[in-house]
Amino acid sequence: MEARRRICLTVAYDGTAYCGWQVQKNGNTIESELNRALSELTGEKIQVIGASRTDAGVHGLCNLAVFDTCFRIPAEKLPYALNQRLPEDIRVRESKEVAPDFHPRRCRSRKTYEYHILNAPFSNPVKRLYSYFTYAPLDVEKMRQAAAYLVGEHDFASFCSAGSQAETTVRTIYDLTVEKSGDEIVIRVTGSGFLYNMVRIIAGTLMEAGRGRMASEKMEEVLAAGNRTAAGPTAPACGLILTEICYERQENSDFFTNPA
Amino acid sequence: MEARRRICLTVAYDGTAYCGWQVQKNGNTIESELNRALSELTGEKIQVIGASRTDAGVHGLCNLAVFDTCFRIPAEKLPYALNQRLPEDIRVRESKEVAPDFHPRRCRSRKTYEYHILNAPFSNPVKRLYSYFTYAPLDVEKMRQAAAYLVGEHDFASFCSAGSQAETTVRTIYDLTVEKSGDEIVIRVTGSGFLYNMVRIIAGTLMEAGRGRMASEKMEEVLAAGNRTAAGPTAPACGLILTEICYERQENSDFFTNPA
Repeated sequence: MEARRRICLTVAYDGTAYCGWQVQKNGNTIESELNRALSELTGEKIQVIGASRTDAGVHGLCNLAVFDTCFRIPAEKLPYALNQRLPEDIRVRESKEVAPDFHPRRCRSRKTYEYHILNAPFSNPVKRLYSYFTYAPLDVEKMRQAAAYLVGEHDFASFCSAGSQAETTVRTIYDLTVEKSGDEIVIRVTGSGFLYNMVRIIAGTLMEAGRGRMASEKMEEVLAAGNRTAAGPTAPACGLILTEICYERQENSDFFTNPA
Repeated sequence: MEARRRICLTVAYDGTAYCGWQVQKNGNTIESELNRALSELTGEKIQVIGASRTDAGVHGLCNLAVFDTCFRIPAEKLPYALNQRLPEDIRVRESKEVAPDFHPRRCRSRKTYEYHILNAPFSNPVKRLYSYFTYAPLDVEKMRQAAAYLVGEHDFASFCSAGSQAETTVRTIYDLTVEKSGDEIVIRVTGSGFLYNMVRIIAGTLMEAGRGRMASEKMEEVLAAGNRTAAGPTAPACGLILTEICYERQENSDFFTNPA
């Protein structure tokens, strides 16, 4: 009998054409493409476990896909074999053997997302798929002031769309920055995990502050309300990109940190 | 009778889905989309004159489209009216009335193109449409050394694909830089004008030098040969983007410089 190993893939994707990460009955997903390519390659029925179940239209540079296999191939050769079987908008960037108990959603991690905004009089066709365009001028300083209220451990119930299955709405944001370069604004947020649509609701609420439609100090009340209706709109998916996932090193395992 | 005016549009586009700028019998082009939108709006039969007839798959941030019209609308309102009638991958960014004798290809100008290369072990899905991916490591210093031979006035016959209708193959390159940031290399070239495929052949030849398949000093011979076969391959279209066009100010006209 072949030895069974647990493999962790680092996967980058352009989410434009997909109904999100998670397998769905109707519509193509990143996960289903990976399952298909892995099953074809190994001859086993593979179902990967993802680190982040990104929504339809959201992009990823470093999501993780974990699976067990008896297929004999050095882990580091897998990207080459898989990329041949995957569409161009999904690329396996890395592959490692990991501890047999490693679960990419149950193990403690820090995830970083970026939300990209194009703030200009007119859209830019070559950036349109990877940023949210708004011509309404955004005041980055006001966005930063509002963002500061969200850093730390809080109940983020106001920043969670209906349909979440989370047991608790308490999360920790370690870092939340707003940077402007030319006509592009990038909101970068690192946290212990994120509720359903949390980053997009944060981005939508920060843009309300940036437009002057909400005072920056009001962010404290929004957070305290514990109610989705208190926050701003959910910003569109195309501006969101998962850029980094780091795991805590633990004893009795050889997890990597920063697999991207 | 209405006053006839000459209008100059600044146009950005994602070239991925188009057969290039210039109207063609078979296939959609940027120019034909602009002609359609302008004709619909004005009720006149409009045929624009472009500053740069970019190839299929090449992108542009600031190409110019010049036309005459009797349609009464302030020039600065045109982008709003036109963008509603254009697909998302084409945007009119600016519109100005110009001198009636302004011709965007006959008037002296400086054009800047960038060629974007993703040099990494694996492709990046969110950059794939706007850069050329190669895993072969490129030595930027060797590319710079090779690039230095091309700056100045030269006969660029070696860097011109068959099918060119140019009267002379002499052109001036004012500036040619190679910059690396992370896994992205950008070749930026500013010149008095470019022959058919010239920037893509320069990029292809610089990559030969960067890979060590051609000594940087050999660029002098390549230039002297006056023969397309002496240079490297034509780099793929997706990496190329027209980023700037500047016109010389002239007496008796009110041309702008740097319309982007």
